[in-house]
Amino acid sequence: MTSSATKVTIVSERVILDKITAIIEAAGATGYTVIEGGGKGSHGVRTTDRPSVVKALAIVKIEIVVADRETAEKIADAVNEKYFKHYSGIVYLERVEILRPQKF
Amino acid sequence: MTSSATKVTIVSERVILDKITAIIEAAGATGYTVIEGGGKGSHGVRTTDRPSVVKALAIVKIEIVVADRETAEKIADAVNEKYFKHYSGIVYLERVEILRPQKF
Amino acid sequence: MTSSATKVTIVSERVILDKITAIIEAAGATGYTVIEGGGKGSHGVRTTDRPSVVKALAIVKIEIVVADRETAEKIADAVNEKYFKHYSGIVYLERVEILRPQKF
Repeated sequence: MTSSATKVTIVSERVILDKITAIIEAAGATGYTVIEGGGKGSHGVRTTDRPSVVKALAIVKIEIVVADRETAEKIADAVNEKYFKHYSGIVYLERVEILRPQKF
Repeated sequence: MTSSATKVTIVSERVILDKITAIIEAAGATGYTVIEGGGKGSHGVRTTDRPSVVKALAIVKIEIVVADRETAEKIADAVNEKYFKHYSGIVYLERVEILRPQKF
Repeated sequence: MTSSATKVTIVSERVILDKITAIIEAAGATGYTVIEGGGKGSHGVRTTDRPSVVKALAIVKIEIVVADRETAEKIADAVNEKYFKHYSGIVYLERVEILRPQKF
């Protein structure tokens, strides 16, 4: 038995991670995952500090799964509005099926 | 030409990674990806051992793409039932379109 | 306000990362994310150089979000055709909702 939920994914420069997680927590989400990586964005090459993948800046990928779509949009809008006018980044939503709705 | 498949994502504490991959292999999945990260869950802050993202516990994100939905649900149910009553974690399913069904 | 986009995910051995990103850039995508990990594929155990998750080979997960489906398929087909006959890997597509279509 699964139930529908919304996953918010935010890819941003690592330097604003704490500001983004503050928005997530303020929106009432109880958990999120942070993964470090590198990459290339429209504002230049973004990278980790490991030579194999790297050139310049580090990025983080932050994922939040919430049961209600409204909270997902609230987080996405807030991050987009507040940070992605000045920092490169992307935020997108996906529909997922969760197994433990009671844990959200 | 794509064909439909199901992706299972499991986010858990790193300490039970081997137990989870054993479930995945027992279910007959031929491959999975493991990514290390940090984060915050309903049972407290979870983190990596790299100071930039971190505070306490390490997490892993495990992804499996399987052609048949039944195997996906079998893995998700087994992990959920066996570990997520005692460890914090989340498991969710997503529909994806794959290009190489013959490889699964 | 969101608009529909397509996410391409490529999981491959790390050794061909540069070749894959060259395909992505040639297809006109303006950005991508690279995350390092380990795992197990149909051609054997793939791993990172960190002992906790590891055994042998390293993998990368590359994600690209593009506004038009055609570019997504072009990237997926090219990677699949050129590399996944000789290297183990997987490429899949997902529908996502983005908040900044103008940035793609």
